[in-house]
Amino acid sequence: MRLLLVNPNTTAAMTEEMAVAARSVASPDVEIEPVTARRGVASIDGYHDELLGAAAVAEAIEEHDGDFDGAIVACFGDPGLYAARELTRAPVVGIAEASFLLASTLGERFSILTTLERGVPPLADVVRLYGFEPRCASIRATGLTVLEADAEPERAADALEQVGQTAIREDHADVICLGCGGMVGLRERLEERLGVPVIEGVPAAVGVVQALIRAGLRTSKARGFKQPEPNAYTA
Amino acid sequence: MRLLLVNPNTTAAMTEEMAVAARSVASPDVEIEPVTARRGVASIDGYHDELLGAAAVAEAIEEHDGDFDGAIVACFGDPGLYAARELTRAPVVGIAEASFLLASTLGERFSILTTLERGVPPLADVVRLYGFEPRCASIRATGLTVLEADAEPERAADALEQVGQTAIREDHADVICLGCGGMVGLRERLEERLGVPVIEGVPAAVGVVQALIRAGLRTSKARGFKQPEPNAYTA
Amino acid sequence: MRLLLVNPNTTAAMTEEMAVAARSVASPDVEIEPVTARRGVASIDGYHDELLGAAAVAEAIEEHDGDFDGAIVACFGDPGLYAARELTRAPVVGIAEASFLLASTLGERFSILTTLERGVPPLADVVRLYGFEPRCASIRATGLTVLEADAEPERAADALEQVGQTAIREDHADVICLGCGGMVGLRERLEERLGVPVIEGVPAAVGVVQALIRAGLRTSKARGFKQPEPNAYTA
Amino acid sequence: MRLLLVNPNTTAAMTEEMAVAARSVASPDVEIEPVTARRGVASIDGYHDELLGAAAVAEAIEEHDGDFDGAIVACFGDPGLYAARELTRAPVVGIAEASFLLASTLGERFSILTTLERGVPPLADVVRLYGFEPRCASIRATGLTVLEADAEPERAADALEQVGQTAIREDHADVICLGCGGMVGLRERLEERLGVPVIEGVPAAVGVVQALIRAGLRTSKARGFKQPEPNAYTA
Amino acid sequence: MRLLLVNPNTTAAMTEEMAVAARSVASPDVEIEPVTARRGVASIDGYHDELLGAAAVAEAIEEHDGDFDGAIVACFGDPGLYAARELTRAPVVGIAEASFLLASTLGERFSILTTLERGVPPLADVVRLYGFEPRCASIRATGLTVLEADAEPERAADALEQVGQTAIREDHADVICLGCGGMVGLRERLEERLGVPVIEGVPAAVGVVQALIRAGLRTSKARGFKQPEPNAYTA
Amino acid sequence: MRLLLVNPNTTAAMTEEMAVAARSVASPDVEIEPVTARRGVASIDGYHDELLGAAAVAEAIEEHDGDFDGAIVACFGDPGLYAARELTRAPVVGIAEASFLLASTLGERFSILTTLERGVPPLADVVRLYGFEPRCASIRATGLTVLEADAEPERAADALEQVGQTAIREDHADVICLGCGGMVGLRERLEERLGVPVIEGVPAAVGVVQALIRAGLRTSKARGFKQPEPNAYTA
Repeated sequence: MRLLLVNPNTTAAMTEEMAVAARSVASPDVEIEPVTARRGVASIDGYHDELLGAAAVAEAIEEHDGDFDGAIVACFGDPGLYAARELTRAPVVGIAEASFLLASTLGERFSILTTLERGVPPLADVVRLYGFEPRCASIRATGLTVLEADAEPERAADALEQVGQTAIREDHADVICLGCGGMVGLRERLEERLGVPVIEGVPAAVGVVQALIRAGLRTSKARGFKQPEPNAYTA
Repeated sequence: MRLLLVNPNTTAAMTEEMAVAARSVASPDVEIEPVTARRGVASIDGYHDELLGAAAVAEAIEEHDGDFDGAIVACFGDPGLYAARELTRAPVVGIAEASFLLASTLGERFSILTTLERGVPPLADVVRLYGFEPRCASIRATGLTVLEADAEPERAADALEQVGQTAIREDHADVICLGCGGMVGLRERLEERLGVPVIEGVPAAVGVVQALIRAGLRTSKARGFKQPEPNAYTA
Repeated sequence: MRLLLVNPNTTAAMTEEMAVAARSVASPDVEIEPVTARRGVASIDGYHDELLGAAAVAEAIEEHDGDFDGAIVACFGDPGLYAARELTRAPVVGIAEASFLLASTLGERFSILTTLERGVPPLADVVRLYGFEPRCASIRATGLTVLEADAEPERAADALEQVGQTAIREDHADVICLGCGGMVGLRERLEERLGVPVIEGVPAAVGVVQALIRAGLRTSKARGFKQPEPNAYTA
Repeated sequence: MRLLLVNPNTTAAMTEEMAVAARSVASPDVEIEPVTARRGVASIDGYHDELLGAAAVAEAIEEHDGDFDGAIVACFGDPGLYAARELTRAPVVGIAEASFLLASTLGERFSILTTLERGVPPLADVVRLYGFEPRCASIRATGLTVLEADAEPERAADALEQVGQTAIREDHADVICLGCGGMVGLRERLEERLGVPVIEGVPAAVGVVQALIRAGLRTSKARGFKQPEPNAYTA
Repeated sequence: MRLLLVNPNTTAAMTEEMAVAARSVASPDVEIEPVTARRGVASIDGYHDELLGAAAVAEAIEEHDGDFDGAIVACFGDPGLYAARELTRAPVVGIAEASFLLASTLGERFSILTTLERGVPPLADVVRLYGFEPRCASIRATGLTVLEADAEPERAADALEQVGQTAIREDHADVICLGCGGMVGLRERLEERLGVPVIEGVPAAVGVVQALIRAGLRTSKARGFKQPEPNAYTA
Repeated sequence: MRLLLVNPNTTAAMTEEMAVAARSVASPDVEIEPVTARRGVASIDGYHDELLGAAAVAEAIEEHDGDFDGAIVACFGDPGLYAARELTRAPVVGIAEASFLLASTLGERFSILTTLERGVPPLADVVRLYGFEPRCASIRATGLTVLEADAEPERAADALEQVGQTAIREDHADVICLGCGGMVGLRERLEERLGVPVIEGVPAAVGVVQALIRAGLRTSKARGFKQPEPNAYTA
């Protein structure tokens, strides 16, 4: 089984980190094929960045279609997920979506911990669009960018712990979703400190897309995810 | 990895059918341990039957706790799911829940096809409780009981096809969930006739619980699923 | 008119307290017939306990069907309420349900005060299932168990007052529901201290079930509450 | 116990009919005090009529405050209900509200049968405002005005039966609310023909307001229903 | 183009202030025709006051119908708006409604700042009725009456700033609606202090009703806003 | 006042048609500046097309920022609207959004008439994202593409009339939104045939953006629409 792991930003190091995380949870017969966005932005922090990331996802899906059994959109916010579903019959899963799905089987309500405050409304849109509002206790930001978090992992872990404690105490979350594809390798440490399950997006998506493939399921082509119409395209 | 597959009704033949379905989609390293309800009803058709099924699920979880890495409640309606989550730290997944989760990654909205009209309100409760109302196009009944369907598989397939066509045409579903654990071995035939993905609950749940286990996730004990309080019990 | 008052736990003293509360508000022509669960748990604090309580409710309804004009499920959380509705044509009302119904005619939004934090998610499920989410300001726990509250009534009243003040000030509740069948005899004292209406479940349910009976209304048997199907039962 | 029954329209004959219905379900110790609107419209069919009816309700409450233990707004749509709650501490219940409350204890979802199509949106507003959307299957109109229905009771019963059948079959209602205060004396006949519980507003409200009074409950004055501010009034 | 600006309270000075605000944003070809309620209350602070205001709005619309191209209900809470829509074909817009509409194009979620705490539930009703709940972050009161605010504009501005800061910080509002028709001339000062867009109701409504008129749109007469039925009226 | 009218598809003829419609409703002091997407697709029919349109919108806003007082995204579905709001302080309005806003002031519930069935789910997403679900009666497709409709305007009008009649009769819509920017010049004819208000997106958006500008309002930069972060960009 071959899974395409699409990083919608251009930072190859982050793709590599996420591929490691994906491989660590994949069944032995699963091959992870990482792809980095060829164009766009180094990290995705807002609506305009997401739009560029979405275009990169669509390009990657079109280019590799036929070479994978399932695909993962590896940016929390799932840019281009619905376009990707139009472009291939293979199942495609976003890491935000997969996190919400698994979170809803582990507790009453989850909180999402993200990077910057500006990232909260786009995530609220996604929660709303997928219909997870009743299961989402809150979305909270640490104030650290992805790059800052990467440079100082201890500081990042401390910030996530602090914001997570607030989510548990004030918003009554009993599950935490790490709201950024780059927040990897933190799960166990945070679970220990917070005392609740902590979900990383990439491993969650690897599990969900495998579940779909092994059950023989493919994207519905009956309505919104029908193959795009033939269209005059101007590059 | 060892998965407990709990059939909340007392019909061992149905347990066996579901175990076969579970094994057919499990990874090679996964062992399926089927359990049939020791008491209760031969099939679950309503609120009172569900209550008996829920008690059987709780008993099975208590008895086997420590011997499994994850558990599946194998009756569409998920009786006893939340009690089961209190009783063990291992992840527990219901087949209705797992079906809704996977369905929501494949299309816009799913319809559930069930047996008797009386089973529609209990399923509507579950959809509402889990928060899937915006993703559920409709719940429709064939009018055939589980036993009738088992006795005449062709008639059952025809009835499901007919009701499924209505769900697609009138309710604008683009994914179908088979709303009974005993509806196994019908997926491919129905997909062919209906032209949309058709989800069987047991395979869906096998995939979701594996995803949880491989990602190292366990049920949250922070709020509603805390281990039960010590209590004076009268048998 | 004869009302069955079913206590889903096994503590006869609590049944007696609730019967006293019921009689104090019943019309002169109403007879209260209290029943204590024959098996199960001494107090209900979570999903598994509720499941045992639900079984006891169903048993009581089956046993006494024909001998009552209406029935009350006297545990806040209403275990077994829907199963009870299947088993008899007489109206059956839960004390949580009745509290929410009456609360919604007295103010803008109500808060529920319950015992332990773990009891909050099951009550949130009930609020959601009945459709009262827009009318429910919050669910808050005192941290005292039923038994602790019974042993030290003054401490219980103080704890309820404090949590109630928070619900009024921070959650903007203007009506309080006492979220445990055993919280009886506190209404007047708390109303005085809190300055808002305080609803006890048992008196509320006595009123609602009388309203149904006097209006000639009985449970609908058209869909979800149809009499159970004949079924093979294993004890 | 003394209940004020306020008819918001000016048709005294309708007040009398409703008083008869109220008395037929009241406990022996309950006195019904009917009041007809002194000004306004002969029947209430839309937003502007409701506004006139609301003013009449407020006038009646102000005039009689102190002389009743509870009050009923006896027009389906509950005009002036919230203003009435501001003007008195005694509980006030609307007949639409009371119907929805009782309906929600008898089945899965109710349908409202009303007179003219134009009356559907105002009722939809009330359903939405009270938070009963998830319990309301549909609102359907017979096309007959109140006066036509009064003149030809058989034709009215037939029309209600026909619309009720549609609500049961197509909207999956299992309880019917008669959506006009003047639809009295039809319950038994319709229940027989439709096979589901049929709720008349006035008897429902008599029961609910009694339940509030016997439980010692009064309208909350903590927020929206506080006594009106002193204000310069121009008649 | 001629716009009727109806002040539902009897305070002519407030009508004049609002007319000034309306004219300052109207296109050159737009004429503002202010009308003050002939009877009712000097300021509107609750459900009963709103009912009197609503009657005044209906009277003004009936009296002037034919003489305007569009009308504005100039009290935040929009009393009588739906009755007004029944009474004329010309578009009618409420200042609360218009504020919410424009707010939803400028940010993620808006907060409403109003005068007294008692005014919060009626505004919550309006938000709910119009369907703006997901876009409304909170409704907060300054505790100052309209008259106090008029007498001490600096104190009013300070109070609004303070409450607005809380709405931004705690409720995560990014747009502010001034929840009283009399809060005019404060927008620029508050925007500077709060750093988010601040919407005054009257200018918002002038813009929205112009948009309707220039697009040739008139109120739908197909359902709820049909011209009232002929009816026997008692003055 | 200068308004940028951005057509997210590459068909200049459609831009021209929409500019004509915009000018016909603009105040005399308003200048319409039409812009056609430089790259992307000739018409937008699905998620992938929308993504390309969104990129074109962002490009146009960035290029012209400073030269306009407000902007309009002139494709029903509003691709790139939120990214556009990040990129400029001037108000930006989508034609779907503006249509929903105005529709909600004219009737109870609106239906959207669009081109192809596949376009329904993306519009349902937008309705959901904006929070207009309670005001949207249905979304229905004619089955004609934009190009077919352009080639045969009579056939298009007939198809819209037929689908509109169904929306009015079966879904109880009392306002119609034309769900494609290219459906211009049809309003009066359809209003006559359907008997309800018919809203064209471009004129609606021209009115709404003018309302914002004249009221001095600009996009909030406090949360989701903050100017994008400096970022490493790869073309």
